[in-house]
Amino acid sequence: MQTINVELGDKSYPIHIGPDLLTQVGLLAPLLGPTNVVVTDSHVAPLYLTALQTAVGDRLTDVVVLPEGEVNKNIEAVMKIIDTLTLCACGRDTMLLALGGGVIGDVTGLAAAIYLRGVDFIQLPTTLLAQVDASVGGKTAVNHERGKNLIGAFHQPRCVVSDIQTLRSLDQRQFRSGIAEVIKHALIADLEFFDWLEANMQNLLQQKPAALKHAIARCCEIKAGIVAHDEKERGPRALLNLGHTFAHAIECDSAYSWLHGEAVAAGLILASRLSQQLGFIERNTVERVRDLTAAAGLPVRTPEIPPEQWRAWMRMDKKSAGGKLRFVLLDAIGKARLEPNVPQARLDEVLLGAHL
Amino acid sequence: MQTINVELGDKSYPIHIGPDLLTQVGLLAPLLGPTNVVVTDSHVAPLYLTALQTAVGDRLTDVVVLPEGEVNKNIEAVMKIIDTLTLCACGRDTMLLALGGGVIGDVTGLAAAIYLRGVDFIQLPTTLLAQVDASVGGKTAVNHERGKNLIGAFHQPRCVVSDIQTLRSLDQRQFRSGIAEVIKHALIADLEFFDWLEANMQNLLQQKPAALKHAIARCCEIKAGIVAHDEKERGPRALLNLGHTFAHAIECDSAYSWLHGEAVAAGLILASRLSQQLGFIERNTVERVRDLTAAAGLPVRTPEIPPEQWRAWMRMDKKSAGGKLRFVLLDAIGKARLEPNVPQARLDEVLLGAHL
Repeated sequence: MQTINVELGDKSYPIHIGPDLLTQVGLLAPLLGPTNVVVTDSHVAPLYLTALQTAVGDRLTDVVVLPEGEVNKNIEAVMKIIDTLTLCACGRDTMLLALGGGVIGDVTGLAAAIYLRGVDFIQLPTTLLAQVDASVGGKTAVNHERGKNLIGAFHQPRCVVSDIQTLRSLDQRQFRSGIAEVIKHALIADLEFFDWLEANMQNLLQQKPAALKHAIARCCEIKAGIVAHDEKERGPRALLNLGHTFAHAIECDSAYSWLHGEAVAAGLILASRLSQQLGFIERNTVERVRDLTAAAGLPVRTPEIPPEQWRAWMRMDKKSAGGKLRFVLLDAIGKARLEPNVPQARLDEVLLGAHL
Repeated sequence: MQTINVELGDKSYPIHIGPDLLTQVGLLAPLLGPTNVVVTDSHVAPLYLTALQTAVGDRLTDVVVLPEGEVNKNIEAVMKIIDTLTLCACGRDTMLLALGGGVIGDVTGLAAAIYLRGVDFIQLPTTLLAQVDASVGGKTAVNHERGKNLIGAFHQPRCVVSDIQTLRSLDQRQFRSGIAEVIKHALIADLEFFDWLEANMQNLLQQKPAALKHAIARCCEIKAGIVAHDEKERGPRALLNLGHTFAHAIECDSAYSWLHGEAVAAGLILASRLSQQLGFIERNTVERVRDLTAAAGLPVRTPEIPPEQWRAWMRMDKKSAGGKLRFVLLDAIGKARLEPNVPQARLDEVLLGAHL
């Protein structure tokens, strides 16, 4: 087991990474409260709920099983959790345990953030995407019909337990979706890691334990380092959104038939192309990004979206300031920057060719 | 105009108190964003919306008018505000302006707390209750069918503008309801202020400007002092809930036909009686509390509620810890304490006589 700490003063917490952690009673027991409620979804429950129930033992108060999928990441899901918490008369010292992918972590985290003005929660991510990204850093949110993650809060978990054994049950599409966030972390902050990914993509896709553990740990280290300096995204944390302005538009436009990671993959390529258009990087850098994305079996093209529809979706981007979009772009592989001045014409050129 | 500062580091903000402040452009203009949305209710809109619209001028983006009343303080109201914000493509630099009583402040504050993981808001309280209590300190919340204020967040406003002129339009029942929170502040922290209230209750009820201004300012000073030391209610801030464990039960049980302040008045007397039962204060102290409450025209008895129903409502109290209720009690007028050990028998004695 490897442990990485997210340093946030009295909100600091550990991320534990390794095989068979779900059943390790010692990791969870010291954190449990007088009431403990597990939140999971209809896909994950049959796979891992029993293991977690065994670990929590007779301190388990109740279990909430939500319908799976991004379309269910909404305020109604949050209210369903809160209904159960009120029914069990859970107090401020309650512990929520989020067992599942990014959707379960986000929904449970938001419920924890607003129930009684804040109770504790633990992330137990069971997808690669959640283990390398969503479970770390305290961003919680649900979607609104007009945009993704528009309703949420910053609320740090007390602990993240990433059992890499759980990834074995992921279907290939879900697993590849997580790789997109791995590539993103390398692009933002670590050229050496990007080189390593180019050399080890097949090992990663085959879930070789050493490769898997290295990739997850490196992503968590990169993200923990950025979050520690800017918890509430007043500055550099926005870099973690590389590709996401495009990705959120693609997800919304597809009514979430595109997985988040698939949309991020296409978004990373669009961000690279826009960086090239603005003269920040060379064409061969864009090609390296596209080639690695393709090697992971991820989409390198977007669906065809009319320009005015792109603009409508992107207008809801949370990074916008003064009604103006701000983009995360690349200065090089391993070096991202926030760019407030992107001429509409340059952006349009990239968007018009996005599906080609 | 008198100004009191709430000292909370980079979240500090001023409370401005005085007549005709709603129309003072200079107070609001420096705080406005590129988009500015006013939230108010169907009772307040016809009275003061025009004045505020004039002050905000052409920087006003939209207005949300919610149905009035505590029964509408729910998550649906928050979502209605958020719908408007998404429709106007409001970004993180949006300013919300809460024009109304405690319900509007609480609902708007929670919408501001969770929209895009947090945008700014200004409190423009138009009721005595909101001016002396609800608008200060950053507690935001909505009700759940199983209990009051169960869903919320700590989210400080950027500024509070208390225009005492707006109190003139309050009906007598609403005005008296606010007096209950005034009495509460005196009971918690200031014997001299309690003495003053005993001497000046008629001036206050007649809304004599000097008396009104003194009472509002003194309450804000007391509350600001407590909140500055304990923003998130990890300790002494809980004292501000004197009478509220009882009050929330009364409000819920009455389906909110009791106004919050009316329930607080009855709750203050129950807290005093419980303090007497436990030997903390003398009978004559309870009588002073009851007499001042009666002089304000506030209820000194509760409705008849069966003991098991009392317990069911009180179990949802947010101050409970480890499934155990904690009460705010009095050591003297002007001195409150948090008491974790109240024998059920003592509590039952007080509750059984509550309606007599």
